[in-house]
Formats: sequence, structure tokens, C-alpha cells
Amino acid sequence: MSLDADIAARLKRNDAGLFSAVAQERGTGDVLMVAWMDDEALSRTLATRKGTYYSRSRGEYWVKGETSGHTQYVHEVRLDCDGDTVLLIVDQEGAACHTGAHSCFDADVLLSPETA
Amino acid sequence: MSLDADIAARLKRNDAGLFSAVAQERGTGDVLMVAWMDDEALSRTLATRKGTYYSRSRGEYWVKGETSGHTQYVHEVRLDCDGDTVLLIVDQEGAACHTGAHSCFDADVLLSPETA
Repeated sequence: MSLDADIAARLKRNDAGLFSAVAQERGTGDVLMVAWMDDEALSRTLATRKGTYYSRSRGEYWVKGETSGHTQYVHEVRLDCDGDTVLLIVDQEGAACHTGAHSCFDADVLLSPETA
Repeated sequence: MSLDADIAARLKRNDAGLFSAVAQERGTGDVLMVAWMDDEALSRTLATRKGTYYSRSRGEYWVKGETSGHTQYVHEVRLDCDGDTVLLIVDQEGAACHTGAHSCFDADVLLSPETA
């Protein structure tokens, strides 16, 4: 599946041909996870509206929820000003995190809000 | 400024010693920008509550808003499950994007919501 040439021209990839993808939940605004994409993963995401990423460790594409059932329906995709990150606005089925947490950012708080 | 050893032990950095930082606006939930940090940038952010990043192109630290006045007050910092991305919950003064846009993701829509 080949990525639209106009979009491909605006992307800025790292040395491995990858760029970041941030998935944000539509209903809550929660930032759910950050993963990697390459052109093919983005192309598949745009065509299928299923969040599709590239696993550096496994060296393969993965469709979010394909094994867990925790699918992501992609409402919107936006590219940032310097072309190296896409933002996906999604409806998340079940937990977004492989730990079972709603979001990958739920567990580890490095800094808490100041108490007034 | 040295980063807390427990936090440093949980971070997973890329070959350049960097990890991603996503800044999200507290009031609106908008994802504003994604930039890079290293241990020092995170340490300064945690200590000062001012969003502080590392510029790969300039090879230096930058405090968001130091030149533009568009400062980020950092309410919360969270680390994701695999330790390679931090999420900053911020109050953003003025525009977060260097283009003058509210968010770095405002301008370039790759996929729009389906119309019912």
C-alpha cells in the first residue's frame, strides 16, 4: 500500500525511516500511547482507519488490538509542524496499554500537581 | 542538575540519549507539541516546572517560551509503560507552535472524521 506522495513529501523520518505517532482518545482527550510508524504503517492507518504501527523490536507491522481485541478506530490524523509526529484521534476499545491500563501513562507519575 | 536515580533507571533512551516528550494542555486536553528530552532536560523540567527540552538541531537545551514568552507551566509529568516517552500536563501561555498556531498539530490534517 503506497502512501500519498504529497503526504510522503511532508514527512520527516529518523534514520530508521520512522516517525512518532501519538494516539489520543476522542471522548476523554486522554493521551493513550506513543508508538512508531513508517510510511506503510501510516498508509494502512489512513486507508483502514485502524491504528497500525511498526514494531522496532519485532521488525513488523502491528494493528492495534489484532491480538488483544483492543482496537483503535481512527477518526482523525494530523501531522505536526515539523513533519515528524502524527496525532491520531481514536476511539479505543478496552485498554490501550499492554499492561491492561487505560493509558500507557497511567502508572508512573514523575511529578504531581502542586497543592495550593 | 542530576536526575533522580530511580527515575533515570526507568528511562529508555535512544542512541543519542534522548526520549520523547508530549506536552498536553491541562484545560483543553489539546496535544500541543512533541519534542525531545535527555536526562538533564527532564531533571530541569521536574525541578523548575518549566517545560525544558533538548534541541537536536541546535545541540542545546531550550526552555519553552524563553525567547517567545510562550512559557509552559508544568503541572504533571508521567512516564509511559516502556519508559521512552514522558507526558507533560501544562498550562500554555500563548501559542505552543513556533508558527503561531495554538498547537503544532493544528495545520495539517491527513485524515478527517467520517461524516455520518
